Amino acid sequence: MKVGIVGANGYSGIELIRLLQHHPYTDLTKMISHSTSGKNILELYPHLENFVDMSLEHIDIEEIAREVDLVFFATPAGVTKDLIPDFLEKGVTCIDVSGDFRLKKPEDYKQWYKKSPANDQYLQESVYGLPELNRHKIKEAKLIANPGCFPTATLLGLIPVLQHKVIDLYSIHIDAKTGVSGAGRNVNVANLFTEVNENIKAYKVGHHQHIPEIEQVIREISGEEAPISFVTHLIPINRGIMSTIYCDLIHNLSIEEIYQLYKEMYKNEPFIRIRQVGQYPTTKEIFGSNFCDIGLYVDERTNRLIIISVIDNLVKGASGQAIQNLNILAGWEETTGLMNVPLYP
Amino acid sequence: MKVGIVGANGYSGIELIRLLQHHPYTDLTKMISHSTSGKNILELYPHLENFVDMSLEHIDIEEIAREVDLVFFATPAGVTKDLIPDFLEKGVTCIDVSGDFRLKKPEDYKQWYKKSPANDQYLQESVYGLPELNRHKIKEAKLIANPGCFPTATLLGLIPVLQHKVIDLYSIHIDAKTGVSGAGRNVNVANLFTEVNENIKAYKVGHHQHIPEIEQVIREISGEEAPISFVTHLIPINRGIMSTIYCDLIHNLSIEEIYQLYKEMYKNEPFIRIRQVGQYPTTKEIFGSNFCDIGLYVDERTNRLIIISVIDNLVKGASGQAIQNLNILAGWEETTGLMNVPLYP
Amino acid sequence: MKVGIVGANGYSGIELIRLLQHHPYTDLTKMISHSTSGKNILELYPHLENFVDMSLEHIDIEEIAREVDLVFFATPAGVTKDLIPDFLEKGVTCIDVSGDFRLKKPEDYKQWYKKSPANDQYLQESVYGLPELNRHKIKEAKLIANPGCFPTATLLGLIPVLQHKVIDLYSIHIDAKTGVSGAGRNVNVANLFTEVNENIKAYKVGHHQHIPEIEQVIREISGEEAPISFVTHLIPINRGIMSTIYCDLIHNLSIEEIYQLYKEMYKNEPFIRIRQVGQYPTTKEIFGSNFCDIGLYVDERTNRLIIISVIDNLVKGASGQAIQNLNILAGWEETTGLMNVPLYP
Amino acid sequence: MKVGIVGANGYSGIELIRLLQHHPYTDLTKMISHSTSGKNILELYPHLENFVDMSLEHIDIEEIAREVDLVFFATPAGVTKDLIPDFLEKGVTCIDVSGDFRLKKPEDYKQWYKKSPANDQYLQESVYGLPELNRHKIKEAKLIANPGCFPTATLLGLIPVLQHKVIDLYSIHIDAKTGVSGAGRNVNVANLFTEVNENIKAYKVGHHQHIPEIEQVIREISGEEAPISFVTHLIPINRGIMSTIYCDLIHNLSIEEIYQLYKEMYKNEPFIRIRQVGQYPTTKEIFGSNFCDIGLYVDERTNRLIIISVIDNLVKGASGQAIQNLNILAGWEETTGLMNVPLYP
Repeated sequence: MKVGIVGANGYSGIELIRLLQHHPYTDLTKMISHSTSGKNILELYPHLENFVDMSLEHIDIEEIAREVDLVFFATPAGVTKDLIPDFLEKGVTCIDVSGDFRLKKPEDYKQWYKKSPANDQYLQESVYGLPELNRHKIKEAKLIANPGCFPTATLLGLIPVLQHKVIDLYSIHIDAKTGVSGAGRNVNVANLFTEVNENIKAYKVGHHQHIPEIEQVIREISGEEAPISFVTHLIPINRGIMSTIYCDLIHNLSIEEIYQLYKEMYKNEPFIRIRQVGQYPTTKEIFGSNFCDIGLYVDERTNRLIIISVIDNLVKGASGQAIQNLNILAGWEETTGLMNVPLYP
Repeated sequence: MKVGIVGANGYSGIELIRLLQHHPYTDLTKMISHSTSGKNILELYPHLENFVDMSLEHIDIEEIAREVDLVFFATPAGVTKDLIPDFLEKGVTCIDVSGDFRLKKPEDYKQWYKKSPANDQYLQESVYGLPELNRHKIKEAKLIANPGCFPTATLLGLIPVLQHKVIDLYSIHIDAKTGVSGAGRNVNVANLFTEVNENIKAYKVGHHQHIPEIEQVIREISGEEAPISFVTHLIPINRGIMSTIYCDLIHNLSIEEIYQLYKEMYKNEPFIRIRQVGQYPTTKEIFGSNFCDIGLYVDERTNRLIIISVIDNLVKGASGQAIQNLNILAGWEETTGLMNVPLYP
Repeated sequence: MKVGIVGANGYSGIELIRLLQHHPYTDLTKMISHSTSGKNILELYPHLENFVDMSLEHIDIEEIAREVDLVFFATPAGVTKDLIPDFLEKGVTCIDVSGDFRLKKPEDYKQWYKKSPANDQYLQESVYGLPELNRHKIKEAKLIANPGCFPTATLLGLIPVLQHKVIDLYSIHIDAKTGVSGAGRNVNVANLFTEVNENIKAYKVGHHQHIPEIEQVIREISGEEAPISFVTHLIPINRGIMSTIYCDLIHNLSIEEIYQLYKEMYKNEPFIRIRQVGQYPTTKEIFGSNFCDIGLYVDERTNRLIIISVIDNLVKGASGQAIQNLNILAGWEETTGLMNVPLYP
Repeated sequence: MKVGIVGANGYSGIELIRLLQHHPYTDLTKMISHSTSGKNILELYPHLENFVDMSLEHIDIEEIAREVDLVFFATPAGVTKDLIPDFLEKGVTCIDVSGDFRLKKPEDYKQWYKKSPANDQYLQESVYGLPELNRHKIKEAKLIANPGCFPTATLLGLIPVLQHKVIDLYSIHIDAKTGVSGAGRNVNVANLFTEVNENIKAYKVGHHQHIPEIEQVIREISGEEAPISFVTHLIPINRGIMSTIYCDLIHNLSIEEIYQLYKEMYKNEPFIRIRQVGQYPTTKEIFGSNFCDIGLYVDERTNRLIIISVIDNLVKGASGQAIQNLNILAGWEETTGLMNVPLYP
């Protein structure tokens, strides 16, 4: 299958390039970049030598539509809402790694992204590309809204207890930690090495655009409008997200019962690994891979469940999940090109 | 004043040495170490050249008691409970940086430290050395139990709302992140550079010995036995703790009201700095200093207060606070030797 | 082909496991560990879940010889010199990632490793497994001495000018920088996170056992006994080696001539990439891959050539090169299982 | 003494602010910034709360000259060459932390800085502010050119053997490693956390502007024009420089003789510490302090001397040395405000 990448020059873009190199059924034939068109990708990323030798181009929708079957969009917020409809009109399947088509309610996008939302028709058509939740819809989709990195880690941790209705929906506290690559390759004082190294920082407190995305899925599963507490922290690592989730159990469930519930729910999921009782995953254990590893603890003193969920933000949190969605769409084995061992140490 | 350090060869020990070098009224005349006695401290820590040139000695209580007025104990858990009583008998004032005398209930120590507790008489005599809470008691103390690093960051964040009774005591969630120096200089696979670097790890989930310490102070202030949720995370930095605290407000207080409450409560505290509304402290902003910086957010969607409190675990979380306690005890200006600017970046 | 790993529990061991998972023609059927036998590898490394589920065993040469065709040794220095002869006797091909069979002169091993050397017969039989230098000998070998990490980076940088005799052999200065994984997973105060983080350290100054290894290859190529200057530095990264090499040119060669010489020499090498004039490789650009990237500079002011050569110490510097040697031995495509894109960022 | 800082908002600027807070005889009354004037320094650096509460101002030379006695310039290259003459005209003493007045030959500045040089009169008037070399001239200076960070580390390592004429001047190889704060707080893709973390990079190969600065001092001491090899490497740490220097001994000197030579030469220097034979300094051992620590090795195989010299680039490599120069100028004890213990770990 011929594919293209819009926004190939960012970190999600080059992670797509990396993963597509290891994918047997795709042919990457177009790389688009607004800010660096005309340059060869090797000028920006010499580590890609021997793999790709291709220039970044200005966007030309007609031409792309003629040459590729599917486009990945690895663009900043606010770009695809205007761009993707034209691609869809021309019959190109779109996987949007940005957030423009994730929120079904236009007013949510307006409030949290501070931009005008996409056309409602497309918002409703788009499928939220979390395979573990929406695999059947993804198969038929023309437009996939690839989930955000924090929602991926958090929702994969929460879905079993949401679906089994064993937690108080109004008690969910999510304390998330992320590496810096999530911020992209954009120059910004806050992301200088000197500012991030030997530092921990809470950021976007109360304003993170992933809040409504998580709440939307909670609402879809539970039918309830339950606001969450959610604080994100910047950690001096390149890759990796840990979501530490606290929620009140509404029944007295033992850790063994909870563990079995997760094992059962995810028994056929190739990319989810549940740690044994008493073990908790670290981000290094999924580094460079498409896994989501989950650890569980029931605090009997407070009757709360603590869920620790980790992903690589650039893989399961972005480009790997996009390829997983492509595999589902195309009818290929879902793990195609994605079953690599995490890099340790 | 002549002072000694037992456990001078660990990280809290050398941080005491560093701070005492800058303290005008003390004379460090004894350094004791169990594992490295006989060595000059410069063999272990060449960075101290030009400041100290002294050998580490085996412990000899008689001799220490003759030569010094006050001893700092920077020892692992389980050492001072047996050692300090002998020092007290000989009239030596003791500041214990370890956890042996912090928990007033012997059964708490037994449960959380998995060791037999100190003699109850000394447990009751000891003063919990959090100056912002117990300044008056510290003045008269013979034995100070210097608070743990996580309790220091967390309690300084919580005390204003605990004392003003504006939060639901049963809603407190504490998500704590720490640098690696808290683990000391002990060899351990888990603390190798390769294992910690580019990693985030939750540890001691449900079993951290700082849980009962925090709950004890909550109980003392509120009179209630309110269990907390508390998870600690290891972050690839050397120094720094961030405690992100979530709690339900029981009244509808605005962020401005909360901010004023903190500003008022801490207006005379030299080491507490409250960030303006909308600003949150990072650990780098207190690096190497005795400050505790606090940021506040009221989430109106959930009516929860989020408190972000940071300290340097080796300074305000250990050795700096020990010096602060010494200053109070001795009747010196409380900031003596401690008013240094954080190192940035 | 059935293969085993002796020393599977160290970092080179698990890197072999990782790479073998992606190798189509091998079957890893034995994992041996002295210190952790009896444990499942997943207890030590949960990141391997879904890939291997196998216990580490005590060594039993008879049994291993029956069950596997080839063994990788990822053991500390001093182990294989006694162990490998027994394997060879039983017809097992051996690839030794440790240094025991690299030095042809027994007295060199004695001097630099401070241990008694292997039996001379085996020393002479062993083939130094640097494919770019010894590909033809490797094809026929029964015992491969896989090169050290620093020699790999350094020699690949030097070989073209050594073979073309354009440098003064007595002018070679090598300033090497390495990540911490080279030290293995052994507990050691010097490798604690707190000691390595935010630090640069020169180590083994004048005593590094890779000095005679580099000099041996220089001697083999040039016929001269030319001592080198070589200092290694520990850098706070997990993976990666940079060797900065300085040498005096004996002719006035321009940078373009030098560049052409390298391009020509390495034109068929799949894992060597020469940066264009004016560009220099960084270690991140080969992270997780088997590449050696090389940059070149001719300083006309001093008539010196500066060569910057980078590898991932665990891949091209250890386990990746071992697989490359296996591929050559077995007659498979040399890049089999090794052509992965570096992980960036 | 009333002092001002031009360029107070950069990293050298805030390091000056930090050190001046601990200095008993100065009063910081003016902070100037081109890019952030109008802002309070606390908006940019909240860690300074409780120490300074002052706005950054546009430059007004008349006003500054009226209000302060001495100005520190912590500006990018190319600013002070035009600015400082006006300050000197008005009788203000100037300490220039930038490189504009370091090179005595205008053509050197033109070649290496790619800018037009300062007026020759001022170039000749300026005193190169390396106290260990030029203490007597500094006492009388009106304009001090504070040395660069690499030259400081390197020259302090070389001066004893240069002055004693024991090395071949044409054999000097300097391999330098630096933390990222040397690059300032300027936004730049190359200095993003994601690009620097887990990476080693050689930069400005052959073009570093500190090359002529080092060569100038070699020329001044030896009378010879001896070009050096000098390569700088970016290391993922915030602070710290290590200069590894290789040079050929022209006599057969033992390590003990070399060690005695250094001890003797620097016996009265408060900020230079020579490690014992067999010990080498690490950058962490001088972190946050004004020390330059030096280790020495004589390689008898090559008859080369290897010198390892470390400084904190923001302290001895910039702002600390500037304060040291101020102390000398003002006739105060040279260590005033600078004798702080390195922060470890």
